Amino acid sequence: MAVNILKVFENINSYFSPKVIAEVNDQYIKLAKIMGDKVPWHQHDHEDECFVVVEGELLMEIEGCEPFKMAKGDVYVVKKGIRHRVSSSRECQIMLIETKTTQHTGNVRSEITKSIEEQLG
Amino acid sequence: MAVNILKVFENINSYFSPKVIAEVNDQYIKLAKIMGDKVPWHQHDHEDECFVVVEGELLMEIEGCEPFKMAKGDVYVVKKGIRHRVSSSRECQIMLIETKTTQHTGNVRSEITKSIEEQLG
Repeated sequence: MAVNILKVFENINSYFSPKVIAEVNDQYIKLAKIMGDKVPWHQHDHEDECFVVVEGELLMEIEGCEPFKMAKGDVYVVKKGIRHRVSSSRECQIMLIETKTTQHTGNVRSEITKSIEEQLG
Repeated sequence: MAVNILKVFENINSYFSPKVIAEVNDQYIKLAKIMGDKVPWHQHDHEDECFVVVEGELLMEIEGCEPFKMAKGDVYVVKKGIRHRVSSSRECQIMLIETKTTQHTGNVRSEITKSIEEQLG
């Protein structure tokens, strides 16, 4: 009945392709693997986005701030309207908590952009 | 800048006492240690509640269903209005995602009930 995060990650074979694993109230919980720097700078005008590092290390860049590395177990919320991007030189596994309507590359369409339907698939 | 889940757990010394570690949109992300069966049967009439097992094993009981054990990495959402309780014979570390207004023991006041102010403290 429960979904296991570790098992879902075993079956994620592509990077930058969030998978919805649960919905709670008006939010989706998603899992994604990140490797490389294909996520474009973007923002979500009306929605916060929460990042949790499950495995590996994530480089978080916030416009106007010093970039910082997030380690396993780190939680960071990018507040609405803040331009950001994430990258990782090695494979990194992350959990995302965001409003159901949130586009994962925000106001930007890029080669990695996936529709909500693809994320639910 | 990020909050580390593993480090927060090192500093949680009491059971059944959720600590708010982040807010994302209208939701709080909380961490709690569970040991024993002091959580009363309760429900949240208007809010879903998401459980993530970070360490240990959690017994989830849903009214009218077979109880089931949640292992490390398991995610389960108790939908609004569903009576439930959780327990653990050994220490278990969980993450909760729930609406800011959610009372952690729902419609029931018990010896473990904490106010939102206590959870933010």
